[in-house]
Order: sequence, then C-alpha cells, then structure tokens
Amino acid sequence: MACTLCMDPEKKPTKFRKETDTFGSLDVPDDRLYGCQTVRSIMNFPIGGIEERMPYAIIVAFGILKKAAAKVNIDYGLDKKLADAIMEAAEDVISGKLYRQGHFPLVIWQTGSGTQSNMNTNEVIANRAIQILGGKLGTKTPVHPNDHVNKSQSSNDTFPTAMHIAVAMEIRDRLMPGLVALKDTISAKSREFDKIIKIGRTHLMDAVPLTLGQEFSGYSTQLTYAIDRIVATLPRLHYLALGGTAVGTGLNTRIGFAEKCAAEIARLTGIPFETAPNKFEALACHDAMVEVSGALNVVACSLMKIVNDIQLLASGPRCGLGELILPENEPGSSIMPGKVNPTQCESLLMISTQVMGNHVACTIGGSNGYFELNVYKPLIVSNVLRSIRLLGDGCQAFNKNCAVGIKANEEKISHFLLNSLMLVTALNPHIGYDKAALIAKTAHKERGNLKETAIELGILSSEEFDQWVRPEDMLGPK
Amino acid sequence: MACTLCMDPEKKPTKFRKETDTFGSLDVPDDRLYGCQTVRSIMNFPIGGIEERMPYAIIVAFGILKKAAAKVNIDYGLDKKLADAIMEAAEDVISGKLYRQGHFPLVIWQTGSGTQSNMNTNEVIANRAIQILGGKLGTKTPVHPNDHVNKSQSSNDTFPTAMHIAVAMEIRDRLMPGLVALKDTISAKSREFDKIIKIGRTHLMDAVPLTLGQEFSGYSTQLTYAIDRIVATLPRLHYLALGGTAVGTGLNTRIGFAEKCAAEIARLTGIPFETAPNKFEALACHDAMVEVSGALNVVACSLMKIVNDIQLLASGPRCGLGELILPENEPGSSIMPGKVNPTQCESLLMISTQVMGNHVACTIGGSNGYFELNVYKPLIVSNVLRSIRLLGDGCQAFNKNCAVGIKANEEKISHFLLNSLMLVTALNPHIGYDKAALIAKTAHKERGNLKETAIELGILSSEEFDQWVRPEDMLGPK
Amino acid sequence: MACTLCMDPEKKPTKFRKETDTFGSLDVPDDRLYGCQTVRSIMNFPIGGIEERMPYAIIVAFGILKKAAAKVNIDYGLDKKLADAIMEAAEDVISGKLYRQGHFPLVIWQTGSGTQSNMNTNEVIANRAIQILGGKLGTKTPVHPNDHVNKSQSSNDTFPTAMHIAVAMEIRDRLMPGLVALKDTISAKSREFDKIIKIGRTHLMDAVPLTLGQEFSGYSTQLTYAIDRIVATLPRLHYLALGGTAVGTGLNTRIGFAEKCAAEIARLTGIPFETAPNKFEALACHDAMVEVSGALNVVACSLMKIVNDIQLLASGPRCGLGELILPENEPGSSIMPGKVNPTQCESLLMISTQVMGNHVACTIGGSNGYFELNVYKPLIVSNVLRSIRLLGDGCQAFNKNCAVGIKANEEKISHFLLNSLMLVTALNPHIGYDKAALIAKTAHKERGNLKETAIELGILSSEEFDQWVRPEDMLGPK
Amino acid sequence: MACTLCMDPEKKPTKFRKETDTFGSLDVPDDRLYGCQTVRSIMNFPIGGIEERMPYAIIVAFGILKKAAAKVNIDYGLDKKLADAIMEAAEDVISGKLYRQGHFPLVIWQTGSGTQSNMNTNEVIANRAIQILGGKLGTKTPVHPNDHVNKSQSSNDTFPTAMHIAVAMEIRDRLMPGLVALKDTISAKSREFDKIIKIGRTHLMDAVPLTLGQEFSGYSTQLTYAIDRIVATLPRLHYLALGGTAVGTGLNTRIGFAEKCAAEIARLTGIPFETAPNKFEALACHDAMVEVSGALNVVACSLMKIVNDIQLLASGPRCGLGELILPENEPGSSIMPGKVNPTQCESLLMISTQVMGNHVACTIGGSNGYFELNVYKPLIVSNVLRSIRLLGDGCQAFNKNCAVGIKANEEKISHFLLNSLMLVTALNPHIGYDKAALIAKTAHKERGNLKETAIELGILSSEEFDQWVRPEDMLGPK
Repeated sequence: MACTLCMDPEKKPTKFRKETDTFGSLDVPDDRLYGCQTVRSIMNFPIGGIEERMPYAIIVAFGILKKAAAKVNIDYGLDKKLADAIMEAAEDVISGKLYRQGHFPLVIWQTGSGTQSNMNTNEVIANRAIQILGGKLGTKTPVHPNDHVNKSQSSNDTFPTAMHIAVAMEIRDRLMPGLVALKDTISAKSREFDKIIKIGRTHLMDAVPLTLGQEFSGYSTQLTYAIDRIVATLPRLHYLALGGTAVGTGLNTRIGFAEKCAAEIARLTGIPFETAPNKFEALACHDAMVEVSGALNVVACSLMKIVNDIQLLASGPRCGLGELILPENEPGSSIMPGKVNPTQCESLLMISTQVMGNHVACTIGGSNGYFELNVYKPLIVSNVLRSIRLLGDGCQAFNKNCAVGIKANEEKISHFLLNSLMLVTALNPHIGYDKAALIAKTAHKERGNLKETAIELGILSSEEFDQWVRPEDMLGPK
Repeated sequence: MACTLCMDPEKKPTKFRKETDTFGSLDVPDDRLYGCQTVRSIMNFPIGGIEERMPYAIIVAFGILKKAAAKVNIDYGLDKKLADAIMEAAEDVISGKLYRQGHFPLVIWQTGSGTQSNMNTNEVIANRAIQILGGKLGTKTPVHPNDHVNKSQSSNDTFPTAMHIAVAMEIRDRLMPGLVALKDTISAKSREFDKIIKIGRTHLMDAVPLTLGQEFSGYSTQLTYAIDRIVATLPRLHYLALGGTAVGTGLNTRIGFAEKCAAEIARLTGIPFETAPNKFEALACHDAMVEVSGALNVVACSLMKIVNDIQLLASGPRCGLGELILPENEPGSSIMPGKVNPTQCESLLMISTQVMGNHVACTIGGSNGYFELNVYKPLIVSNVLRSIRLLGDGCQAFNKNCAVGIKANEEKISHFLLNSLMLVTALNPHIGYDKAALIAKTAHKERGNLKETAIELGILSSEEFDQWVRPEDMLGPK
Repeated sequence: MACTLCMDPEKKPTKFRKETDTFGSLDVPDDRLYGCQTVRSIMNFPIGGIEERMPYAIIVAFGILKKAAAKVNIDYGLDKKLADAIMEAAEDVISGKLYRQGHFPLVIWQTGSGTQSNMNTNEVIANRAIQILGGKLGTKTPVHPNDHVNKSQSSNDTFPTAMHIAVAMEIRDRLMPGLVALKDTISAKSREFDKIIKIGRTHLMDAVPLTLGQEFSGYSTQLTYAIDRIVATLPRLHYLALGGTAVGTGLNTRIGFAEKCAAEIARLTGIPFETAPNKFEALACHDAMVEVSGALNVVACSLMKIVNDIQLLASGPRCGLGELILPENEPGSSIMPGKVNPTQCESLLMISTQVMGNHVACTIGGSNGYFELNVYKPLIVSNVLRSIRLLGDGCQAFNKNCAVGIKANEEKISHFLLNSLMLVTALNPHIGYDKAALIAKTAHKERGNLKETAIELGILSSEEFDQWVRPEDMLGPK
Repeated sequence: MACTLCMDPEKKPTKFRKETDTFGSLDVPDDRLYGCQTVRSIMNFPIGGIEERMPYAIIVAFGILKKAAAKVNIDYGLDKKLADAIMEAAEDVISGKLYRQGHFPLVIWQTGSGTQSNMNTNEVIANRAIQILGGKLGTKTPVHPNDHVNKSQSSNDTFPTAMHIAVAMEIRDRLMPGLVALKDTISAKSREFDKIIKIGRTHLMDAVPLTLGQEFSGYSTQLTYAIDRIVATLPRLHYLALGGTAVGTGLNTRIGFAEKCAAEIARLTGIPFETAPNKFEALACHDAMVEVSGALNVVACSLMKIVNDIQLLASGPRCGLGELILPENEPGSSIMPGKVNPTQCESLLMISTQVMGNHVACTIGGSNGYFELNVYKPLIVSNVLRSIRLLGDGCQAFNKNCAVGIKANEEKISHFLLNSLMLVTALNPHIGYDKAALIAKTAHKERGNLKETAIELGILSSEEFDQWVRPEDMLGPK
C-alpha cells in the first residue's frame, strides 16, 4: 500500500495497529486515523489513483454535518463531553487539515451510496476525538464511530446531505466569484467599447454594423442570466436529506432532529438550508443535482459561445479578423512577434466541453437507482463538484489573464467597417434601392469601395456619401 | 416532386405557376400558396422525409407573430386594409388549416437561421392575403411577402421569437397538462396506499419497512418539483427577440415596435411575453432554450426513476416482485394469463431516453454559432419541441393507460414484509442486539421466518413477538 | 381517429369492419389491412404525430424478413400456396406500396420490444395474402397472422433482426453513397488546389504555409477513414437474431431455421448476413447498434470539423477570411451582392449535431434493458436510422449544392500569404535568427510587410528576399 | 505556491533558481527540473488541484517519444553524447520516477495544443540530461530543451503522437487485462451454470426457461465482442503524427525522420505504430480518439447491462429475486445477516456511467478545433485515458471481488421455475391450446401451481404432467 496522499509507492506506511469490525480484524497504518471499513474499501476498490479521490468538498461537508449532528445530539442525550470532542475533531475535518494529512484516501468508485466515505469520516472523527480525550486509537472508546459520531444518522441520509452542503458551498465560494468577476469585466469592456462601431457578422458573413460595446453587452447579458440560472436551482438544493435515515422514514432518529440539524448546518455555513419536505425523494433520487448540473451546462454553453467569439475576433494578427488584441501570457513563437496563442480561451473552451460531458454522466446517474435509494451518489456529486470547480477556477484564470486585458484593435475594426459593402443599405432612402444595389454590385465585382464606386458611377458626390452613409445612424431603431 | 404533405410520390402536383425572386423564376405548384424561396429550399434540401418537417408549433407561432406584427405595423404606416388581410391570412396559419393543406413543406435541415421558414410563412401569408383581397397568386400585389408581411422584421429576430412563442405555448398546452395529470394520479395513489406497509429496498437489498404510500409520495414529490423546475426557466423564455432585426441593433425597425409586438403577442397567447432587454443576446445565443431543455432533461430523469420502479415492482407475476398490478391493455401472451407486459412503462422510458439525447443535441447546438447569430436555430427548437411533445403525450398515455389503474398486490406485499429479516431490528430494545442478531442469523441460515425462529430458539413467545415486532411502529422518527 | 397517413383530421375513415383478438373485438377501418393489435396500439399510444412513426426502413426490413421466413417455412411444413401468398404480400411491403397507403401507422413509442410493429406487419401481410387468395379481410383464414406469417418467430427475435437488416441496408444504400460522393469531391478539390499555397493557421493564428490542396487532403483523409470506421462495425451488424424466438433458446423453432433464414435474407438483400452465434446476446442487448451509432458519431465529428473550416474559410466577403468561394443557391440579401450565406454548411452542421444527440439516446437505451430482452429497441433503431438518413441525405445535398462548386479565391489567399509575417522563418538559415526576428518585429510594430521592412532595415536586398523567401520551399521536410 | 506533488500548501518550496525564456526570467523551485515555461503555465492556469494533472500515461508517452526522437536524430546530426544523455533522461520519465518526484505538475486545462506539457517534458529532460552530463540546471547547456530535446519536432505533432502512444499502451496494459479477466470469469461461470435451468424474463415478466449458463453466455459474448470492438479501432490509433511539425507539412524536419521515429517507437513499445499517411488529418482532428472513445462507450453499455442483471438477480435475500449469491466483501448491516450490498456492481455501474459522460466530452472536443490544429487535445486524451483506466481497474476489481465468487442459488432458481406458469407451453402439443390455457388461467386466478391445478381440473395425471412438462426440453430448437 503506497502513500495514500501522493500515492507515491516510495512512501509506504511501516507501522500498523489492529482494528476490528464485524468482518474481523485488519492492519491499519498507525499514522492514519481511519479504521477497518476504510481499509477494506482501499483494498476492494483499487481504482484509479489520487485523481479519483472523493472530492475534498464532500469531506468538508461531512465535517460540517457531523459537527452539527453532534451538537443537536446533545439535546437527545449524547454526553456533552463526547459531543464536544466530536465537534472539535470535526473542526479538523472542516479545516482540511485531516484531508491534507491523508486520512481520507477513498476513491469515488466505491459503493454507490457513499457508505464507505461516511464510515471513513465516522472513523476519522471518532479516532481524532479519542485522541483529544486521551484515549487509544482504534478502541472505539470513549467515542464510537457508529454509536456516537453517526448517531441518528445513516449513510443513506448523510451522504446526500453532504452532497447538497458541498455543492451549495462550492457554488457560493468557487463558482459565483468566478462568474461574477468575469461578468463584471465583460460589462466594463462593453462600456469601454461603447463608441467603437464595427461590422456585424451573421452566418459568418458581413452584415450591418453595431458597436463593439453592443456585441459585448450580449456576452455580459449571457453571464448575468448564467448567474440567474444557477440561483433558480437553489431552492431545491437547499433541502437536506438528514433525518431520513435508511429509507426515508426516519426510523431510529428522533422527532425534531432533522429540523434542528438543518438549522445548525444553515448557521454553520450561512446558507439557508432546510430539512427536505419529503425524505423519500431526497434519498431515492438526485434530481436536484441533475438540475444544478443542467444550469452549469447552460453556463458552459454561454462561455463556449463568448470565448469562441473572442478567440475568433482576436485571430490573426495578419490573416485573421484581428479586431481584438488579447494579452500575451507566454511565448507564442520565438520567431513571430504578434503570435499570441489564445491559450486562456482554449483552456476555458476545454473546461466548458468537460462540463457538458460531466452533465451527461450526472444525468445518466440521476436517472438510475432503484426504489428507496439512488446508488450513483459519488458519481453524481463528483461530476457536479468538478464542473463547479473547473468553471469557477477557469473563469478566474480567464478573467485575470485574458478578459481584463482585452483591447480593441480600432484600426482593423475601422478598416473592415469602411470596406464593407453592407453600409450601402443607408443609401436606400436617398437614391433608391436600384441605384444602391448597382453601387454595391459594381464595388463587389471590381473590388472597389463603396464611396469611390458611387462617385465613379456618377451617382453621388463625396459629400453626399459622407452625409448619408453614417454607420453611427445604423445602431438602433428610429 | 412528390406530394409535400404525405411525401407520397403518387400524389405529384400537375399544375404550376411561375414566380420570381432575385435569382430568377421558378415553377411553383399552383395549389400551393408558397413562392420561389420555399421552392428553392425544397430543391436544395431534400433531406429526410415528412418526419423531418419544421415542427408544426413553429408554424403556428409564426402565424401569431405575423398577426401581431401586422396589427402593430398599422401604427407605423401599414395600410389597414392590407394589415387586415394579413391578419386574416395569419389566422389560417394559426388554426393549422394551411399547414394541413401542405403549404409548409420545409424541413428542419435548412439554413441555420430558419430564414427559409420565415420566408415560407411570408410567402404563404402574402399569397393568402392576396387571395382574400381578390388578387392573383404570385404577383406580390397588393401584399408583398417582404415589404408587408415581414415589415420591420428580419429572419434573425422572427425565428428566435417564434422559437420562444412555440416552446412557451407547448409547455403550457402540452407538457404541463401531462405532468399535472400524472402528478395528481400519483399523489392520489400515495394517499390510497397510505396504510399498506411494505419492505423497503436499498441497493436492491431488503431494508427496513415503509408504506407504499410513502414510496409513492417520493414519486409525487419528484413530479411536483418537475413542474417547479419548468416554471423556474420561464422568465428567460418569456423574452422575445422581435425588434432586434438583423444583428440585434433594431436597424430598420421603429422605436416602440418591439415592445408593442411583445404586448400584442402576450395578448394573443395569454402568456406574459416581454421584449428581450438585450437583443444581441436574444439573436446570438439560445441559452434560454438550453435551459428549458435542461429542465426537460431533469423531468426525463424523474420519469425514468419512477417508471423503472413501477415496472420492477410490477414484475412477475410469479418470478418477480409483484407488489404492484398494472392494467392490461393488450394481449401479452395468449398462453399465459397474467403476463401483462408493462408496455406503457417501456414507452415512457424510451421517451425519457430520447429527451436526454435531444438535450445533448440542443446543448451542442446552443454552444455553437458565431458572432451576431446562432445558426443552429431549427435544430435547437425542433429538439426542445420534440421533447415537450413526447413528454406531454407520453405522460398522458402513461397516466391514462397505466397509472390510474395501478393496484397494490397486498398479499404479495405482506408476504415479503413478514418474510423479511429486517424486522428483527425492532427487537433490539427488548432483547438486546446479540439475541436479535442470533435470531436473524439463524433464520437466514435455516431459511426460517423470524417469529418461528425466535420461538424455536426459546428467546421469546409468540405474543411477545407480535407485540414488539410491529412494522407500523417503524415508519417514522420517535 | 384522423387519417393515419397524413394525420389529417379532415380525412377520417368512415367504414369499419370488426376484428377480434384475445381481448375482444374492435372496429378496424375497412380500407386498412391491419387488425386488432394495430388498432389497440394506435389507441394506447397517441404519442406525437406522423413524425413519430416507426421508420420506413424497419417496415421494409420486416417485409424482407417475412418473405424469407415464409420461403424457409415451406421446408418445415408451411403450405406452399399460403407461403407464396405471404411472399407476394411481403413484396408489397418491401416495395413501400403498403406503407405509403397507410397500413403502418404505429409510432416508435410503443412497447420496447417492438412487438406491436411485428404484429402490425403480421396482420397486414396476412390480410394482403387473404386478399390475394380471395378470402375475406379480418377472418385470419386461410392465412393467419401468427400461425403462418409469424411461424417459428417471436417479436423478440424478429424485431432485432429487422433492426440489423434495416440499418445494414440504409448504410449501404443511403449513407455510403453520400459519404463516398463527398469524399470523391473533396479529394478532387484537393488535387485541383494542389498548387495554391496559403497561410496555415493554428490556434486560429497565422502559422507557416501549406497548400490548399494539402489542407483539403486532411479532410479527404477524414472521409476515407469515416468509411473505414463504418465498415469496421459491420461484422457484428451482420449477425441476425432470428431463430432465438422468445428468450434466445430458439424454443418453438426448428433446427436449421435460423441458418436458412439468414442465408435467404442475405440472398434477398445482397448483404452477407449470418445467424448470430449467440442468440441470448442478440436479444438482450444492442451493443452492435451502439457500435454503429458510435461510428456515425465519429462521422458527425469529422463533418463538423470539415464544414466548419470551409464555412470559416468562405467567410466575408470583405470582413472575413474569404479564401474560398461557395456556390450561391438562394438569395442572400437583395441589397448586398456577395452575401452568400453558407446554408448548406449550416444544414450539415445541424445534422452532425443531431447525430451526436441521437448517439447519446442510443447509448442510454443500449445500456438499459433487463435480463433476456432489451426493451429500448424502437428507440435505438429509430435513432440509428435517423442518423444514417440525415447524414446520407445531408452529404448528398452538401456535395451537390456546395462542395462541387467550391472555388479558391486565389487573390485573397495570395494576399494573406504575402502579408503574413511567418514567412520570415525562411530567412533564419541565411541571416540568422536575430536579424530575422528584428525584421518580423519591426514589420509587426509598423504594420509593414516583410520584404519592404527587410529592405528598409538594410538587412537584405529585394533580390535576396525573393530568392530566399519562397513559400513553395516550405511545404515539406527536406 | 504549494507542493506541486500533493498540492499540500504546507510543503512550499523554499529555494529557487532563475531561469529565462523570451518573456524574461522567473524563479524556478530549485528542487524541480522544469523551467520557465512550466512555471508560467502553473501561474497562468491555477485550475483545479492535483486531480486535474495531465495524465501520467501522457508523460510516459512523451518520455518514449523523446527517447525515440533522440535516437533517430543521431542520424540527422545530433551529437551522440547529447543524444545518449537525453535518452537516459527520457528513461527517468518513462519509469515514472520524475513524475512521482513532482516534475510534471501541469494541469489538463492549459493551451489546447498541449504545448506546455511538451515544453514541460523538454525542460525536464534537458535539465536531467544536463545533470547527467555534469552541467548546471537551467543553463540550457549543453542540452537545450528546444534545439536538442525537441529537435525536428513541434508541440503540434508531438502532443498528438503522445496521445496515440499513451492510449494504445493503456489499452494494452490496463484495459485489455481487465476485460479479458472478466470475460474469462464470465465464460467459466457460463460453463459452470450449464445445467441450471431457470425462468427466463422478458419485459421483466416471467417467460419461458433457459439455463443460467445460457444467460451468462450472452454476457460472455458481449465481453468477447467488446474486445473485438476495441481491436477494430486500433488501425487508426497506430498512426503517429510525428513528422508533421507545425501544420502537417513537416517543415523543419527531415525526410525519413517520421518513418524512423515511428519504427523506433514501435520497437520501444512493442506496438505496431506507423507514421500517419496524412499528417494534416493527424494534427487537425482527433477522429481516432473519438473512435476509441466510442468503442469504450459500447464497453460501458455492455458492462452496465451485465452488471445490472447480476445485481438484480442477486437482489434480496428474501424480498428480491435472489437467484445469485454475491461474495460479501464488507459488513452490510450488523443486524441483518445476508444483507450483502452489491458494492462492486455499483462501483462498476458508476464507472460505466462516467465513461458515457467522458465520451460526450471527447465527442464535442473532437468536433471542434479550427483549420490546421485541433486545440482540444488535453481534454480529449484525458477523457479517453480516464475511461480506459476506470474500465480496466474497475473490471479487475469487479472480477476479483465479485465475479469469481458468484454462486447460483439453486433452491431459489428451482422454486421460481417450478412456480412459473410459463411451463404450460409444453402441454400444447399434448392437450391442445385451450385446455392448456384453462390450466394456466385457473392456476393464476387461484394462485395454485400448474401441476396441482392440472390434476385438480382432471385434465391430466401427475405422471403425464411430469412426462410432458420438462423444462430441459425447452432449451433449444427441435
């Protein structure tokens, strides 16, 4: 067994203690706080490496849940000294300390209820609480992983609860900051580019003009709605399964436990969690996760559209559109100045694509599962959390290393605008459609520009052209 | 060219008239109201058959849009007599009469802006209005498809407007009735099955009991949330692109036109449409469609879960679970009475699967498209509309032909419950864990039932067992 | 009940006959050849309209299957007179005559085994054979739909057989001609454009040159491999389930029946079908369909890449890349000559997107289904057939209306090539990296071209530049 | 900057050296072998944690590629002493030593060409070779990352080459062993269960019998074809892009270099790689990856079907089907003996679901990318490699911890078979359909068994029943 942290085979544990469960006894690395059931899972599911670990956000969420449950359990008879130790141990889970030290080595690809990660948490918190209370690791005394840490709980209600806590926290703490930062930048760019008139393009073909600010206002609106879309899914995400225990009935839990725990979790996180009105739904399906994933999928679509446009508008420098100039972050080619590869764009495009794939995995997992329990929980939540993390981090990186530094290449923009034949539209009211079309057709055939062609054809004067063909008058309804 | 209605090659048109556009003149079947541009599209896109036609709901939506625009255009100078004729012609589109007569033969797989379907509508309405006004088909006099029917509009803003109208109407008129009917039935079943205690199953394995009513309450909650999810997407669906014209600026339209049209469309449909706050977004992307599709995708997941459970619970009759009895709708096997295939379940499961596939197509189409115009519009809307239609119709059929007739097989349910070993849990407080476990283990090994085993082992009496092992006390927290 | 052909509610049937099955008797429209079980399916599955009918190719395949089975059944005791009538009736199915007349109205969304479409075929063929033999419709005498037409068969083995027949035929007759035609055109273009040197673009940024012919050779290679990929899936597609009957054991069929039928179907179609080595696999899963769908999915990716490139290279005419000129098929804008929208590109891009969505539906359907029978058959095959048809028709339309007419805009191509700064690479061996970089950087900053800048900087003469900077020497290894 | 290996913020580097590139100089942690470009990528792409690293298999593949190129470059003038040092350094990449030591920290979400991972490799190998030759880290002397390690190469051809090497090796070394092991086990089970006759189930409903061995033969056939499907994609996977350099022309490389490198890579890996016939295709698209991913997607479907069946057949122990008994690997419930959760099934089902999601990401990435370069390379290959790894590891774990230990519960199987009403089919030839149906209907209504009912009804004797109703005669054609 290699180092469970780095999976570095050179860092093998050397000292072990015995722990037992109902299946018998097992060697547990002595520098680890987990117990038998975690070791069994390591042995039975050697699938993938460190990349496949249960996401960190789930572990933190479990810490919060266990802390809240311990506090509430005092009301229902849990010894306060034990509860305090459990809460202190849970703090070390919440802070990430125990995760970084390698006490949570289990992979996503375990039992579909996430039972083993619940037990991993119970074992680690119990042992840590035993340490705090001066006991001996692995003795389950004075703190028992099941009887005390897991009191009034079941894997079947704790894991979905941890899913909702983790996803809601990551949306708030990781996704939203990234989305908001990018939206703010794009909105600022929209204002900054307010006066720059450019050629419009539909079907990739030259069309009537708009301002670069208007173009960016479309992107900014997409990002504003992206935030709205995420928010629209939260009501159902804020419902917690805790209190449903094994099948949703709440057997072995106490009246009021569910509500008090939800309130305590809300207090600890600052997120308005409530106990789920129907616990059968909360265990048996994860529609709320598929819904969140669907909103992330729209965000991915929006980003793909926006970033693709930016990348295309920045193409060149000589043989592309070249209307935008992106910041240079790394050497493109040593030989060709101006070759800035849109690396931030590419990264965010790949991320958006991954989110779409994750969404399909989440959808399929969400549509499966039998009777009282959906058993694709680790799959579902790991995909949602990965999408959130990639989108959040990706937006931040793109914002900081690309978006804020986007500049308009006004010379190029102006060149295209003036060269375009679409401005001829403005002459219709003055010289009639037929003559306007004649100018456009002639210019197209002879590759001339509109103004020179119009004058050459003797249809209008230079002054008339300048007076009538005014892109700035083509930017809105009249 | 075969019959454009049935695609029946035996029904070829025989009489033609000439119509012209800027590309020249073409033969148009004389019993058809469309013109040159429609014929060109038929010729250039012979892709698929009648199954691939632009969805009917889009044609109806175009009728509504054109009617509203004609009315509003009176305020902006459109001759009232022409406007009235256009509005009357639009009525024949809205009623479906002209669609059924084969005047809208174009397929989905045309230009990505849907321009050809907009022109198809313009041509048909113009010719119908010409008929109404006693003119000659194909002369564009006195009603011109572009100058009058399409006045102040562009394909680029009309098609996305028709998309939103069609989807919003179909959600209200086709999806919601199906979902609500099914939800009501399942809720009623949940109440009906309120007292039937059954074995719970997690990981497909026997677990602690719950009532069949509780199990159905999970499904009913899923369906309630399904409706909430759809509703949560409507704010962005109610924004209309009309008024953006070619690139979103609203060039060639008039101040107020967008707002008045949205209000008129709202009035005609009874749906609270508004003009989109940002027209650039409304043309360049279809995030709102991807969002709706995402909600439909969750509905599909929910249905898949519910229907799969029902189907499994009804499996048998002898060699399955057999806890539910489904209505018989068609001969299963002539030899085996009781072999009712769950055909309604299978139909709805296939529909749910299709919706998931449609969602991916919609997502990819939504993430593409360049600059001022997304050009995957027909693809996107046809997938969303198909999902809506299949879910709506599928829920109705399943509800009527299956859900309302579901019966509980109480004998079987009771047999499982009493045979299960999980009830032993109830003995823990009375005889302790160890003795309870002994009973369970012995019963499992010797394939006995709990009560007999308990008595045989001399641990408790028949009366004690009956008093303590009461499934009805295991249905909630204490 | 509206016209089952056009679903036109105005064309209601008026005359009915009674037919009976084990559920009782029903009214059957007297101008229809189907019977009770078909009518029950129409009544029980009113889902979608004519667009949702079971694909035509499946009906044809059923015709072939029934014809083959009738012939083989003579060897196993079927009266030759009846067999001949069945075979003649099957011919009317194969020719499409009975489909066009509306005798196959069932939708995809029926039972997941496709039983009802098998019965629809049995009923129609039986009644048609009865007509041929001078009997009375609906009497099942002298030809019985089950006893004679379905002899030695089960829905469970006939439907998957029809799936394989239909898909293999459509691949050969519809997909391959389209793919081959397009590949041939692109290959020809690759040769035609062999001498046209152009700027390369990576990351959308200017890069070193290649020929337009080389660029097209990449596309042509993609299409060649596309064909290889389809062919690589055929071995498993050519296995037929027939002979497995209800669960794969072949109960109620005769030794040799499976092999003889496969041989006869191979003879009728000219496709090397064989009886499936394992019938349990052939009924219980449709991996072969998912595999074919996966190959179609790669084809869709290839087309998306190729068509996207072509569309971008043709963007403009003034404000895009403009290196290619696409044929004009319909009026773009009346005001702007040269505005050719790449409508054929857009159509094929939408089709490719749909194929990707269909693939996901097919995948999910293929991963489901329990025990001896996958019950997502109509879903799976309808998606595969739709993908084949759209790709086949789409390639033909794109080839004929776009690809064959693609022209290089040599002036534009040459302009970009000469303007690009990347050619400076060629100077490295002659003047060293530093001086070459100085030229490039100066030209980029001052927006000059390489040659003029080089001369201005006094680094080399016009003759030297022309001698050393030769794009034609940059097209391959040395 | 935290530890690049564990991302542990507590393990921050403390000593740095300066390295320079064309953008200036940067601090590089002195215990790391990478250089400036790697550090820039770490700074610019802080996206995700250690879970998001470029897959290990890509790094190994780069090691092989660089080793092969160094050897071939001797023929083209590379100093043999340098080449030897590069080859030795490359060995330390291939062995994984340098990866485990943290010299390859870059994430997937970088530039879409993978340039930064190519440069990471060049930098690490150059510095390691400098160490070997006694030089000073970071001086690029005597071994230069670009001039020597990357000689005749470009990121644009090395990264796709590494993709093909990595995927081909992982298929051989990780996927195939897992698939073959599982297939062998299932085949063995099929033979082991050869004589166990059981009830068949279609539509989840009782059907005619088959043997458990026949049922497993279907699964075994699926797995055999799974292997065939993977193999069918290899021809295109074995083509290597190396030699195409920047845009596919092979500029700056030498005639013969591509072929020699491919041969050397084939020698090093034992896999029949060849140089790609068309390098433009090899850089500009990754159809071969999408094709492989498609085959993995079918494997996922197959596993989902097989594992779902096994899980359902093992459901119970009292209230499910219970025909199979799975090994117990961890405590299910302490109270209920016999509650074995099918955890290995659930793990493999989740893996299969993930593979389907990965496939969609791969498909979308593969359909994108412009002109001479697909720039979704890291996304694509990381999804394919993850699918391979999860499937390979997952099959091994499932095989070892579940499949080999599957046992038939013959008592339960026999009970279902004898209780079923479907055996009545066997009486048809003896007593006629009507009497057989009467027996079945009576038994169904009165919940009796067939034999008793038949005798009670006076239709046949016990002996006749036993003689005629013989499930063992219902297992094949006659």
